[in-house]
Amino acid sequence: MSIASQQPNQRILILGGDGFCGWPTALHLSDAGHEVIIVDNLSRRMIDVELEVESLTPIRPMSERLAAWREISGRDIGFHRFDVARNYQRLVNLLCEFMPDAIVHFAEQRAAPYSMKSPAHKRYTVDNNVGATNTLLAALVESGLDAHVVHLGTMGVYGYGSAGMKIPEGYLKVHVETEAGGMTTDEILYPAHPGSIYHLTKTQDQLTFAFYNRNDGVRVTDLHQGIVWGTQTEQTARDERLINRFDYDGDYGTVLNRFLMQAAVGHPLTVHGTGGQTRAFIHIQDTVRCIELAIGNPPAAGERVRILNQMTETHRVRDLADRVAALTGATLDYQPNPRVEAVENDLHVANDTLIQLGLRPTTLDTGLFTEVTDIAARYAHRADTRRIVCRSAWRADRQVPDVETGAATPSRVTIPV
Amino acid sequence: MSIASQQPNQRILILGGDGFCGWPTALHLSDAGHEVIIVDNLSRRMIDVELEVESLTPIRPMSERLAAWREISGRDIGFHRFDVARNYQRLVNLLCEFMPDAIVHFAEQRAAPYSMKSPAHKRYTVDNNVGATNTLLAALVESGLDAHVVHLGTMGVYGYGSAGMKIPEGYLKVHVETEAGGMTTDEILYPAHPGSIYHLTKTQDQLTFAFYNRNDGVRVTDLHQGIVWGTQTEQTARDERLINRFDYDGDYGTVLNRFLMQAAVGHPLTVHGTGGQTRAFIHIQDTVRCIELAIGNPPAAGERVRILNQMTETHRVRDLADRVAALTGATLDYQPNPRVEAVENDLHVANDTLIQLGLRPTTLDTGLFTEVTDIAARYAHRADTRRIVCRSAWRADRQVPDVETGAATPSRVTIPV
Ligand SMILES: NC(=O)c1ccc[n+]([C@@H]2O[C@H](COP(=O)([O-])OP(=O)(O)OC[C@H]3O[C@@H](n4cnc5c(N)ncnc54)[C@H](O)[C@@H]3O)[C@@H](O)[C@H]2O)c1
Ligand SMILES: NC(=O)c1ccc[n+]([C@@H]2O[C@H](COP(=O)([O-])OP(=O)(O)OC[C@H]3O[C@@H](n4cnc5c(N)ncnc54)[C@H](O)[C@@H]3O)[C@@H](O)[C@H]2O)c1
Repeated sequence: MSIASQQPNQRILILGGDGFCGWPTALHLSDAGHEVIIVDNLSRRMIDVELEVESLTPIRPMSERLAAWREISGRDIGFHRFDVARNYQRLVNLLCEFMPDAIVHFAEQRAAPYSMKSPAHKRYTVDNNVGATNTLLAALVESGLDAHVVHLGTMGVYGYGSAGMKIPEGYLKVHVETEAGGMTTDEILYPAHPGSIYHLTKTQDQLTFAFYNRNDGVRVTDLHQGIVWGTQTEQTARDERLINRFDYDGDYGTVLNRFLMQAAVGHPLTVHGTGGQTRAFIHIQDTVRCIELAIGNPPAAGERVRILNQMTETHRVRDLADRVAALTGATLDYQPNPRVEAVENDLHVANDTLIQLGLRPTTLDTGLFTEVTDIAARYAHRADTRRIVCRSAWRADRQVPDVETGAATPSRVTIPV
Repeated sequence: MSIASQQPNQRILILGGDGFCGWPTALHLSDAGHEVIIVDNLSRRMIDVELEVESLTPIRPMSERLAAWREISGRDIGFHRFDVARNYQRLVNLLCEFMPDAIVHFAEQRAAPYSMKSPAHKRYTVDNNVGATNTLLAALVESGLDAHVVHLGTMGVYGYGSAGMKIPEGYLKVHVETEAGGMTTDEILYPAHPGSIYHLTKTQDQLTFAFYNRNDGVRVTDLHQGIVWGTQTEQTARDERLINRFDYDGDYGTVLNRFLMQAAVGHPLTVHGTGGQTRAFIHIQDTVRCIELAIGNPPAAGERVRILNQMTETHRVRDLADRVAALTGATLDYQPNPRVEAVENDLHVANDTLIQLGLRPTTLDTGLFTEVTDIAARYAHRADTRRIVCRSAWRADRQVPDVETGAATPSRVTIPV
């Protein structure tokens, strides 16, 4: 049995609990006997409206999701719709009423391409993400509660360039020359190399957590998560009304989901650049287990921010494409890379802590086939193939394909004066 | 002659040009022949309204300041009143019309105690400062201009704890063990140890600058400034209508100004803790010269963010108090420290670059007497002695003296539920 379920009846607040990771986490923790309340401002669904896309899977409105869960599990999950970054007072009130033991913080804009779309998207992402984290911590300190904050960070804060070095869990041991000519040793936050405005906000969050941890003693676990793949968990699969989000568009669709869906609709798999980028991955079922493990093992009072790498496998993007192609018969289509990044890279990541705590990974080998048949093929008819191509460029001089024709066009319109 | 004046007629935009550093900088650069435009939302004057304090010196409204400067120098300075963090479109329009060669960015909330006053003040400081920097850079990239951004950071980003190490100019050389058992060397941003929410925002700014520099090639000089003392510069002293701000209250008054003013009104000099904290200092006249030097020596295209330490002397707080006491006959009053910080610390700071560029420091030895007589004594009658005491606590368990009685009271009221 998992560790968290040995501490039943914790009160857990889930910020961003309507999202791709947040919804299955809420169900998983509710199923394990915890009392769960979700906060979400539904901004992710509204971004779907803006981008003119929909989840490939037919996700239901929150009220229907919650009613279905009550019907199926007999358990209630509370829901409050407000903006965590902008509605300080409702957050404080909720904290003081609910008195959570743990707060899982997913409530951020999480797509790198979306964060680079335009100045407005850059500003929204910074204001929303840096604002949500700071507002949460300011509110928590003011409430006087000693709740454990579990935050979702990203492997991307490390940057993907560190040749020949294993990426540690958050902190790096460094040796520095002293004035006297000797050497002193220190452990520092891993130097940040964010690759997009989205990743930038996660490195800024790290500084915010470190500050509140040191100044106010807030207990924090920051889970540096790899790219999540897969759609369903044990709970979301119980009824179609509980189904989880599956993003495939150029902004929110992560690489593996995009390949699966492209294969399902007969579109060639779009590989950016050489496909030589190595990325870290984790299945959504493991995400929810890791969060449960983190909640069940909170840092002690006075402990520094605990940073864990939440990933189970690393793969090169072109190898992933090859695997999906082998399963489905799809072809590959190499396209210019919109990102400013190294062409090829290696990645060695320490993930000892969660494995020691008992995580048993769902691997690509065992899970991929289910995804192809149960999700991608089943809901392929819902796909809008015009949304497959990534239209965000990291810099104005990068070319991006036109959404309708696929032809390369300048990524930015001239600014209005 | 200074270097910047060898490149006459640059167009310089000064964000936060109504403030303590910004106003004398605007006059200094205008006097040197540059074309200057100020942007300011007057938030600093509005905070004076909120805190029920005023500058000890009788600063004039912006229109009067600018008219006086025109009368005295024959030169025009433009002024636009808007919020840099929140008014993206006006900023882009101004950039495209004015096409500045350099942008000096002072537009941030700069008081550590103010940033710690309450959750609302924490949130305002983060949103304003992180937002202003990100908005500026997003706008600059969109404008397509290659303007040099000169930002005012703080020595406080280094933290004040690094025993036995000289603080370098921004980057730290570290040695790291590789997986193979060897050693690799890297230069990283100096690990951040912010001591307040205000300082936190400056460490977040560093990450923002590094990102836009790497992704978009924005040229940035980040001046990590010590505590500025003194009031007047050559230009602000020419007419009383040009006089610069002098803050002495518990939130905005920096340590030396506070001592000077306390001595002038016969108040004991309030030393927090043991007074063993060592701080870096620079005179306002040197601040404006350093900024001119930075503008005259922009980073090359493709150069990483240039970080300079902008300070000229370091002093222990109690030694400063002793010096002011010796000059004025004031007594010392030791009070509890509202900050969460080390009691005593050393500080060795590299400031080679600005000295090499030609800075000739104004030292405490030569400048202090003028400050005592020309400013503190002259305007002492304007002081509100109830505002002298610092009422912001870094943590709810720190005691702060009551503003009226000086008696210690809990620093926070209970929160409304
Ligand atoms: N999906 C991945 O592959 C992945 C990988 C690494 C890290 N993460 C991190 O995990 C977290 C969750 O990611 P996800 O994939 O579930 O994203 P998501 O966009 O599906 O979910 C985020 C949820 O937060 C809500 N939200 C955003 N801002 C809010 C605000 N200010 N107030 C209230 N609600 C707000 C959104 O409406 C959405 O429901 C994010 O922080 C993300 O950075 C995700
Ligand atoms: N004064 C010091 O001792 C000192 C030391 C180190 C660094 N600095 C840095 O130098 C800079 C200037 O400091 P200062 O002492 O002149 O502070 P200040 O508060 O006197 O000046 C800042 C000015 O910026 C304006 N401003 C703030 N936010 C704005 C926004 N969003 N839009 C438009 N205008 C805005 C304010 O109205 C004010 O006039 C700050 O960034 C500060 O952190 C100051």
